[in-house]
Amino acid sequence: MELVIGNKNYSSWSLRGWLVLKWFDLPFTEVGLLLDTDSFKQQIAQYSEAGKVPVLIDNGLRVWDSLAIAEYVNDAYLQGAGWPRDPADRALARAISCEMHSGFFNLRQEMPMNCRARRELTVSDACAGEIRRIDRIWSALRQRFAERGPWLFGERSIADAMFAPVALRFHTYGSELSELANEYMQTVLNDVAIREWIGAAQMELQVLDAEEKGVPAD
Amino acid sequence: MELVIGNKNYSSWSLRGWLVLKWFDLPFTEVGLLLDTDSFKQQIAQYSEAGKVPVLIDNGLRVWDSLAIAEYVNDAYLQGAGWPRDPADRALARAISCEMHSGFFNLRQEMPMNCRARRELTVSDACAGEIRRIDRIWSALRQRFAERGPWLFGERSIADAMFAPVALRFHTYGSELSELANEYMQTVLNDVAIREWIGAAQMELQVLDAEEKGVPAD
Repeated sequence: MELVIGNKNYSSWSLRGWLVLKWFDLPFTEVGLLLDTDSFKQQIAQYSEAGKVPVLIDNGLRVWDSLAIAEYVNDAYLQGAGWPRDPADRALARAISCEMHSGFFNLRQEMPMNCRARRELTVSDACAGEIRRIDRIWSALRQRFAERGPWLFGERSIADAMFAPVALRFHTYGSELSELANEYMQTVLNDVAIREWIGAAQMELQVLDAEEKGVPAD
Repeated sequence: MELVIGNKNYSSWSLRGWLVLKWFDLPFTEVGLLLDTDSFKQQIAQYSEAGKVPVLIDNGLRVWDSLAIAEYVNDAYLQGAGWPRDPADRALARAISCEMHSGFFNLRQEMPMNCRARRELTVSDACAGEIRRIDRIWSALRQRFAERGPWLFGERSIADAMFAPVALRFHTYGSELSELANEYMQTVLNDVAIREWIGAAQMELQVLDAEEKGVPAD
Protein backbone atom coordinates (compact mmCIF):
# COMPACT_ATOMS: atom_id res chain seq x y z
CA MET A 1 0.00 0.00 0.00
CA GLU A 2 0.95 3.62 -0.49
CA LEU A 3 -0.12 6.47 1.75
CA VAL A 4 -0.07 9.99 0.31
CA ILE A 5 0.49 12.49 3.13
CA GLY A 6 1.34 16.15 3.67
CA ASN A 7 4.06 17.77 5.77
CA LYS A 8 4.49 15.76 8.94
CA ASN A 9 4.82 18.91 11.01
CA TYR A 10 1.45 20.33 10.04
CA SER A 11 -0.81 17.68 8.56
CA SER A 12 -2.88 16.32 11.42
CA TRP A 13 -5.18 14.33 9.11
CA SER A 14 -2.16 12.66 7.51
CA LEU A 15 -0.96 11.62 10.96
CA ARG A 16 -4.30 9.97 11.70
CA GLY A 17 -4.20 7.79 8.60
CA TRP A 18 -0.51 7.03 9.05
CA LEU A 19 -0.95 5.95 12.68
CA VAL A 20 -3.62 3.40 11.80
CA LEU A 21 -1.26 1.72 9.33
CA LYS A 22 1.75 1.93 11.66
CA TRP A 23 0.04 0.80 14.84
CA PHE A 24 -1.54 -2.20 13.17
CA ASP A 25 1.70 -3.22 11.43
CA LEU A 26 0.51 -2.83 7.85
CA PRO A 27 3.36 -2.45 5.36
CA PHE A 28 3.17 0.74 3.28
CA THR A 29 5.30 3.31 1.55
CA GLU A 30 4.86 7.05 2.00
CA VAL A 31 4.36 9.62 -0.71
CA GLY A 32 5.04 13.03 0.83
CA LEU A 33 3.58 16.20 -0.69
CA LEU A 34 4.37 19.73 0.51
CA LEU A 35 1.15 21.48 1.52
CA ASP A 36 0.55 25.10 0.53
CA THR A 37 2.87 25.01 -2.45
CA ASP A 38 2.02 25.83 -6.06
CA SER A 39 2.48 22.24 -7.09
CA PHE A 40 0.35 20.69 -4.31
CA LYS A 41 -2.99 20.98 -6.10
CA GLN A 42 -1.56 19.45 -9.25
CA GLN A 43 0.13 16.63 -7.36
CA ILE A 44 -2.78 15.69 -5.13
CA ALA A 45 -5.12 15.69 -8.14
CA GLN A 46 -3.22 12.65 -9.41
CA TYR A 47 -4.34 10.75 -6.32
CA SER A 48 -7.72 12.15 -5.31
CA GLU A 49 -10.46 14.31 -6.77
CA ALA A 50 -11.24 15.44 -3.24
CA GLY A 51 -7.88 17.24 -3.30
CA LYS A 52 -6.84 16.45 0.25
CA VAL A 53 -4.36 14.29 2.11
CA PRO A 54 -4.24 11.56 3.24
CA VAL A 55 -5.02 9.14 0.40
CA LEU A 56 -4.46 5.40 0.67
CA ILE A 57 -3.71 3.48 -2.50
CA ASP A 58 -4.18 -0.27 -2.33
CA ASN A 59 -3.97 -2.28 -5.55
CA GLY A 60 -5.36 0.60 -7.57
CA LEU A 61 -8.13 1.37 -5.08
CA ARG A 62 -7.92 4.95 -3.85
CA VAL A 63 -9.43 5.74 -0.46
CA TRP A 64 -9.38 9.29 0.81
CA ASP A 65 -10.19 10.81 4.21
CA SER A 66 -8.50 9.54 7.36
CA LEU A 67 -11.62 8.02 8.90
CA ALA A 68 -12.61 6.27 5.66
CA ILE A 69 -9.03 4.94 5.41
CA ALA A 70 -9.26 3.66 8.98
CA GLU A 71 -12.58 1.92 8.30
CA TYR A 72 -11.24 0.43 5.07
CA VAL A 73 -8.13 -0.94 6.76
CA ASN A 74 -10.23 -2.22 9.66
CA ASP A 75 -12.51 -4.05 7.18
CA ALA A 76 -9.93 -5.30 4.71
CA TYR A 77 -6.97 -6.19 6.94
CA LEU A 78 -7.79 -6.10 10.64
CA GLN A 79 -10.94 -8.25 10.89
CA GLY A 80 -12.46 -5.47 12.93
CA ALA A 81 -9.56 -5.16 15.41
CA GLY A 82 -9.19 -1.45 14.67
CA TRP A 83 -12.14 -0.74 16.96
CA PRO A 84 -12.92 -2.13 20.43
CA ARG A 85 -14.48 -5.61 20.22
CA ASP A 86 -17.42 -4.93 22.52
CA PRO A 87 -20.32 -3.52 20.45
CA ALA A 88 -21.18 -0.78 22.96
CA ASP A 89 -17.53 0.24 23.32
CA ARG A 90 -17.18 0.21 19.54
CA ALA A 91 -20.21 2.50 19.18
CA LEU A 92 -18.71 4.87 21.74
CA ALA A 93 -15.32 4.80 20.00
CA ARG A 94 -16.96 5.68 16.70
CA ALA A 95 -19.06 8.43 18.32
CA ILE A 96 -16.03 10.23 19.77
CA SER A 97 -14.06 9.66 16.55
CA CYS A 98 -16.89 11.15 14.50
CA GLU A 99 -17.19 14.04 16.94
CA MET A 100 -13.51 14.75 16.29
CA HIS A 101 -13.87 14.19 12.55
CA SER A 102 -16.69 16.70 12.12
CA GLY A 103 -16.07 19.19 14.88
CA PHE A 104 -13.80 21.10 17.24
CA PHE A 105 -13.43 23.83 14.64
CA ASN A 106 -12.14 26.48 17.03
CA LEU A 107 -9.43 24.22 18.34
CA ARG A 108 -8.45 23.23 14.82
CA GLN A 109 -8.26 26.86 13.71
CA GLU A 110 -6.66 28.44 16.76
CA MET A 111 -4.28 25.60 17.64
CA PRO A 112 -2.91 24.27 14.35
CA MET A 113 -0.74 21.18 14.66
CA ASN A 114 2.91 22.16 14.75
CA CYS A 115 4.92 19.20 16.06
CA ARG A 116 8.19 21.11 16.28
CA ALA A 117 6.95 24.12 18.24
CA ARG A 118 6.32 24.89 21.91
CA ARG A 119 4.57 28.18 22.43
CA GLU A 120 2.12 30.01 24.64
CA LEU A 121 -1.30 30.76 23.30
CA THR A 122 -4.40 32.57 24.52
CA VAL A 123 -7.47 30.83 23.14
CA SER A 124 -11.05 32.00 22.69
CA ASP A 125 -13.78 30.91 25.11
CA ALA A 126 -15.18 28.66 22.40
CA CYS A 127 -11.80 26.95 21.98
CA ALA A 128 -11.40 26.63 25.76
CA GLY A 129 -14.80 24.91 25.84
CA GLU A 130 -13.64 22.44 23.19
CA ILE A 131 -10.47 21.71 25.17
CA ARG A 132 -12.62 20.98 28.23
CA ARG A 133 -14.90 18.71 26.19
CA ILE A 134 -11.91 16.69 24.91
CA ASP A 135 -10.49 16.56 28.43
CA ARG A 136 -13.80 15.10 29.64
CA ILE A 137 -13.84 12.51 26.84
CA TRP A 138 -10.29 11.40 27.58
CA SER A 139 -10.51 11.38 31.36
CA ALA A 140 -13.85 9.53 31.44
CA LEU A 141 -12.43 6.80 29.18
CA ARG A 142 -9.15 6.61 31.06
CA GLN A 143 -11.08 6.18 34.28
CA ARG A 144 -13.18 3.42 32.77
CA PHE A 145 -10.57 1.42 30.85
CA ALA A 146 -7.41 2.00 32.91
CA GLU A 147 -7.10 -1.67 33.83
CA ARG A 148 -6.94 -2.76 30.20
CA GLY A 149 -4.10 -0.46 29.17
CA PRO A 150 -3.08 3.19 28.75
CA TRP A 151 -5.08 4.05 25.60
CA LEU A 152 -8.60 5.44 25.38
CA PHE A 153 -10.21 2.00 25.35
CA GLY A 154 -7.28 0.25 27.04
CA GLU A 155 -5.61 -1.10 23.93
CA ARG A 156 -4.88 1.12 20.94
CA SER A 157 -7.80 1.76 18.60
CA ILE A 158 -8.71 4.00 15.69
CA ALA A 159 -10.10 6.44 18.28
CA ASP A 160 -6.55 7.03 19.55
CA ALA A 161 -5.40 7.79 16.01
CA MET A 162 -8.20 10.34 15.69
CA PHE A 163 -7.20 12.13 18.91
CA ALA A 164 -3.40 11.79 18.74
CA PRO A 165 -2.92 15.08 16.82
CA VAL A 166 -4.92 16.83 19.54
CA ALA A 167 -2.50 15.51 22.16
CA LEU A 168 0.36 16.97 20.10
CA ARG A 169 -1.46 20.31 19.95
CA PHE A 170 -2.07 20.35 23.72
CA HIS A 171 1.66 19.71 24.19
CA THR A 172 2.71 22.40 21.69
CA TYR A 173 0.52 25.07 23.26
CA GLY A 174 0.85 23.93 26.88
CA SER A 175 -2.90 23.51 27.41
CA GLU A 176 -3.98 22.91 31.00
CA LEU A 177 -5.50 19.49 31.40
CA SER A 178 -6.87 17.33 34.17
CA GLU A 179 -4.52 14.73 35.61
CA LEU A 180 -6.03 11.84 33.67
CA ALA A 181 -6.11 13.75 30.39
CA ASN A 182 -2.51 14.81 30.94
CA GLU A 183 -1.50 11.19 31.49
CA TYR A 184 -3.15 10.25 28.23
CA MET A 185 -1.35 13.06 26.41
CA GLN A 186 1.93 11.66 27.76
CA THR A 187 0.99 8.17 26.54
CA VAL A 188 0.55 9.61 23.05
CA LEU A 189 3.78 11.65 23.21
CA ASN A 190 5.80 8.63 24.36
CA ASP A 191 4.48 6.29 21.69
CA VAL A 192 7.20 4.93 19.40
CA ALA A 193 5.30 5.67 16.18
CA ILE A 194 4.44 9.19 17.31
CA ARG A 195 8.09 9.79 18.18
CA GLU A 196 9.06 8.60 14.72
CA TRP A 197 6.56 11.05 13.19
CA ILE A 198 7.81 13.98 15.30
CA GLY A 199 11.40 13.10 14.44
CA ALA A 200 10.54 13.22 10.75
CA ALA A 201 8.80 16.57 11.29
CA GLN A 202 12.08 17.88 12.73
CA MET A 203 13.91 16.63 9.65
CA GLU A 204 11.51 18.50 7.39
CA LEU A 205 12.66 21.73 9.03
CA GLN A 206 16.30 20.95 8.33
CA VAL A 207 15.47 20.28 4.69
CA LEU A 208 13.50 23.53 4.44
CA ASP A 209 16.28 25.44 6.22
CA ALA A 210 18.81 24.06 3.79
CA GLU A 211 16.60 25.05 0.85
CA GLU A 212 16.13 28.55 2.20
CA LYS A 213 19.88 28.94 2.59
CA GLY A 214 20.39 27.92 -1.00
CA VAL A 215 21.90 24.56 -0.17
CA PRO A 216 20.77 22.08 -2.80
CA ALA A 217 18.15 19.80 -1.27
CA ASP A 218 19.42 16.71 -3.06
CA MET B 1 -34.82 2.63 19.86
CA GLU B 2 -35.26 6.35 20.30
CA LEU B 3 -33.80 9.00 18.03
CA VAL B 4 -33.34 12.50 19.40
CA ILE B 5 -33.55 15.01 16.56
CA GLY B 6 -33.87 18.76 15.96
CA ASN B 7 -36.35 20.71 13.83
CA LYS B 8 -37.06 18.74 10.69
CA ASN B 9 -36.95 21.88 8.58
CA TYR B 10 -33.41 22.81 9.52
CA SER B 11 -31.53 19.89 11.04
CA SER B 12 -29.68 18.21 8.21
CA TRP B 13 -27.70 15.95 10.55
CA SER B 14 -30.91 14.76 12.17
CA LEU B 15 -32.25 13.85 8.73
CA ARG B 16 -29.17 11.72 8.02
CA GLY B 17 -29.57 9.63 11.17
CA TRP B 18 -33.35 9.39 10.71
CA LEU B 19 -33.07 8.19 7.10
CA VAL B 20 -30.77 5.32 8.02
CA LEU B 21 -33.35 4.03 10.51
CA LYS B 22 -36.29 4.63 8.16
CA TRP B 23 -34.78 3.21 5.01
CA PHE B 24 -33.63 0.05 6.72
CA ASP B 25 -36.98 -0.48 8.48
CA LEU B 26 -35.74 -0.21 12.04
CA PRO B 27 -38.50 0.61 14.53
CA PHE B 28 -37.86 3.76 16.56
CA THR B 29 -39.60 6.62 18.26
CA GLU B 30 -38.64 10.26 17.76
CA VAL B 31 -37.78 12.78 20.43
CA GLY B 32 -37.97 16.22 18.83
CA LEU B 33 -36.09 19.16 20.32
CA LEU B 34 -36.37 22.75 19.08
CA LEU B 35 -32.94 24.03 18.04
CA ASP B 36 -31.83 27.54 18.99
CA THR B 37 -34.15 27.82 21.97
CA ASP B 38 -33.19 28.56 25.57
CA SER B 39 -34.14 25.09 26.64
CA PHE B 40 -32.25 23.21 23.90
CA LYS B 41 -28.89 23.06 25.69
CA GLN B 42 -30.51 21.78 28.84
CA GLN B 43 -32.60 19.21 27.00
CA ILE B 44 -29.84 17.83 24.77
CA ALA B 45 -27.54 17.55 27.79
CA GLN B 46 -29.85 14.82 29.09
CA TYR B 47 -29.01 12.74 26.03
CA SER B 48 -25.46 13.64 25.01
CA GLU B 49 -22.45 15.41 26.45
CA ALA B 50 -21.52 16.37 22.90
CA GLY B 51 -24.59 18.61 22.95
CA LYS B 52 -25.72 17.94 19.40
CA VAL B 53 -28.49 16.12 17.56
CA PRO B 54 -29.00 13.41 16.47
CA VAL B 55 -28.56 10.96 19.33
CA LEU B 56 -29.66 7.33 19.11
CA ILE B 57 -30.66 5.58 22.32
CA ASP B 58 -30.73 1.80 22.20
CA ASN B 59 -31.23 -0.11 25.44
CA GLY B 60 -29.43 2.56 27.44
CA LEU B 61 -26.59 2.90 24.93
CA ARG B 62 -26.28 6.46 23.65
CA VAL B 63 -24.69 6.98 20.26
CA TRP B 64 -24.22 10.50 18.94
CA ASP B 65 -23.20 11.82 15.51
CA SER B 66 -25.08 10.78 12.38
CA LEU B 67 -22.19 8.80 10.87
CA ALA B 68 -21.48 6.97 14.13
CA ILE B 69 -25.19 6.17 14.39
CA ALA B 70 -25.15 4.81 10.84
CA GLU B 71 -22.11 2.62 11.56
CA TYR B 72 -23.66 1.40 14.81
CA VAL B 73 -26.92 0.44 13.13
CA ASN B 74 -25.02 -1.17 10.25
CA ASP B 75 -23.04 -3.26 12.75
CA ALA B 76 -25.76 -4.08 15.24
CA TYR B 77 -28.82 -4.59 13.02
CA LEU B 78 -28.00 -4.67 9.31
CA GLN B 79 -25.20 -7.25 9.11
CA GLY B 80 -23.28 -4.74 7.02
CA ALA B 81 -26.11 -4.07 4.53
CA GLY B 82 -25.95 -0.32 5.23
CA TRP B 83 -22.94 -0.07 2.94
CA PRO B 84 -22.36 -1.61 -0.51
CA ARG B 85 -21.32 -5.27 -0.24
CA ASP B 86 -18.31 -5.05 -2.57
CA PRO B 87 -15.24 -4.03 -0.49
CA ALA B 88 -14.00 -1.47 -3.06
CA ASP B 89 -17.48 0.05 -3.43
CA ARG B 90 -17.82 0.11 0.34
CA ALA B 91 -14.50 1.96 0.68
CA LEU B 92 -15.65 4.49 -1.92
CA ALA B 93 -19.01 4.92 -0.18
CA ARG B 94 -17.25 5.61 3.10
CA ALA B 95 -14.79 8.02 1.45
CA ILE B 96 -17.54 10.20 -0.03
CA SER B 97 -19.56 9.95 3.19
CA CYS B 98 -16.55 11.06 5.23
CA GLU B 99 -15.84 13.85 2.74
CA MET B 100 -19.39 15.08 3.38
CA HIS B 101 -19.10 14.53 7.13
CA SER B 102 -15.95 16.61 7.54
CA GLY B 103 -16.21 19.13 4.74
CA PHE B 104 -18.20 21.31 2.35
CA PHE B 105 -18.17 24.10 4.91
CA ASN B 106 -19.06 26.87 2.49
CA LEU B 107 -22.07 25.00 1.21
CA ARG B 108 -23.18 24.19 4.75
CA GLN B 109 -22.84 27.83 5.79
CA GLU B 110 -24.21 29.57 2.71
CA MET B 111 -26.97 27.10 1.87
CA PRO B 112 -28.52 26.02 5.19
CA MET B 113 -31.10 23.28 4.90
CA ASN B 114 -34.59 24.76 4.80
CA CYS B 115 -37.00 22.11 3.53
CA ARG B 116 -39.96 24.45 3.29
CA ALA B 117 -38.31 27.22 1.28
CA ARG B 118 -37.59 27.86 -2.39
CA ARG B 119 -35.36 30.85 -2.95
CA GLU B 120 -32.68 32.29 -5.18
CA LEU B 121 -29.18 32.57 -3.84
CA THR B 122 -25.86 33.89 -5.07
CA VAL B 123 -23.08 31.75 -3.69
CA SER B 124 -19.36 32.39 -3.24
CA ASP B 125 -16.80 30.91 -5.63
CA ALA B 126 -15.76 28.52 -2.89
CA CYS B 127 -19.33 27.31 -2.46
CA ALA B 128 -19.77 27.00 -6.24
CA GLY B 129 -16.66 24.81 -6.29
CA GLU B 130 -18.16 22.58 -3.61
CA ILE B 131 -21.40 22.26 -5.59
CA ARG B 132 -19.37 21.18 -8.63
CA ARG B 133 -17.46 18.65 -6.56
CA ILE B 134 -20.70 17.11 -5.25
CA ASP B 135 -22.11 17.12 -8.78
CA ARG B 136 -19.05 15.17 -9.96
CA ILE B 137 -19.37 12.67 -7.13
CA TRP B 138 -23.05 12.05 -7.86
CA SER B 139 -22.83 11.95 -11.63
CA ALA B 140 -19.78 9.65 -11.68
CA LEU B 141 -21.57 7.18 -9.39
CA ARG B 142 -24.86 7.43 -11.27
CA GLN B 143 -23.01 6.66 -14.49
CA ARG B 144 -21.31 3.68 -12.93
CA PHE B 145 -24.17 2.09 -11.00
CA ALA B 146 -27.21 3.09 -13.06
CA GLU B 147 -28.05 -0.52 -13.93
CA ARG B 148 -28.36 -1.52 -10.30
CA GLY B 149 -30.84 1.18 -9.28
CA PRO B 150 -31.33 4.95 -8.92
CA TRP B 151 -29.25 5.56 -5.79
CA LEU B 152 -25.55 6.43 -5.58
CA PHE B 153 -24.46 2.80 -5.50
CA GLY B 154 -27.59 1.46 -7.15
CA GLU B 155 -29.46 0.40 -4.04
CA ARG B 156 -29.84 2.75 -1.09
CA SER B 157 -26.87 2.98 1.24
CA ILE B 158 -25.66 5.12 4.12
CA ALA B 159 -23.94 7.30 1.51
CA ASP B 160 -27.37 8.39 0.22
CA ALA B 161 -28.40 9.35 3.75
CA MET B 162 -25.26 11.47 4.02
CA PHE B 163 -26.00 13.34 0.78
CA ALA B 164 -29.82 13.55 0.97
CA PRO B 165 -29.81 16.89 2.84
CA VAL B 166 -27.58 18.30 0.09
CA ALA B 167 -30.17 17.31 -2.52
CA LEU B 168 -32.79 19.20 -0.48
CA ARG B 169 -30.51 22.24 -0.38
CA PHE B 170 -29.91 22.14 -4.15
CA HIS B 171 -33.68 22.04 -4.61
CA THR B 172 -34.35 24.87 -2.15
CA TYR B 173 -31.80 27.20 -3.75
CA GLY B 174 -32.29 26.06 -7.37
CA SER B 175 -28.64 25.10 -7.87
CA GLU B 176 -27.65 24.31 -11.44
CA LEU B 177 -26.63 20.70 -11.79
CA SER B 178 -25.58 18.32 -14.53
CA GLU B 179 -28.29 16.07 -15.95
CA LEU B 180 -27.20 13.01 -13.97
CA ALA B 181 -26.85 14.94 -10.72
CA ASN B 182 -30.26 16.49 -11.29
CA GLU B 183 -31.78 13.04 -11.78
CA TYR B 184 -30.26 11.92 -8.51
CA MET B 185 -31.65 14.99 -6.75
CA GLN B 186 -35.10 14.04 -8.07
CA THR B 187 -34.67 10.48 -6.79
CA VAL B 188 -34.03 11.89 -3.34
CA LEU B 189 -36.93 14.36 -3.52
CA ASN B 190 -39.36 11.64 -4.63
CA ASP B 191 -38.39 9.18 -1.92
CA VAL B 192 -41.28 8.25 0.38
CA ALA B 193 -39.30 8.76 3.60
CA ILE B 194 -37.95 12.10 2.41
CA ARG B 195 -41.47 13.21 1.53
CA GLU B 196 -42.60 12.22 5.00
CA TRP B 197 -39.77 14.31 6.50
CA ILE B 198 -40.60 17.36 4.36
CA GLY B 199 -44.28 16.99 5.21
CA ALA B 200 -43.40 17.04 8.91
CA ALA B 201 -41.21 20.11 8.33
CA GLN B 202 -44.27 21.86 6.86
CA MET B 203 -46.25 20.89 9.95
CA GLU B 204 -43.62 22.45 12.19
CA LEU B 205 -44.30 25.78 10.53
CA GLN B 206 -48.02 25.50 11.22
CA VAL B 207 -47.30 24.74 14.87
CA LEU B 208 -44.92 27.71 15.12
CA ASP B 209 -47.42 29.96 13.32
CA ALA B 210 -50.10 28.89 15.76
CA GLU B 211 -47.80 29.60 18.71
CA GLU B 212 -46.91 33.01 17.36
CA LYS B 213 -50.59 33.84 16.99
CA GLY B 214 -51.17 32.90 20.59
CA VAL B 215 -53.09 29.74 19.79
CA PRO B 216 -52.25 27.14 22.44
CA ALA B 217 -49.91 24.53 20.95
CA ASP B 218 -51.53 21.61 22.73
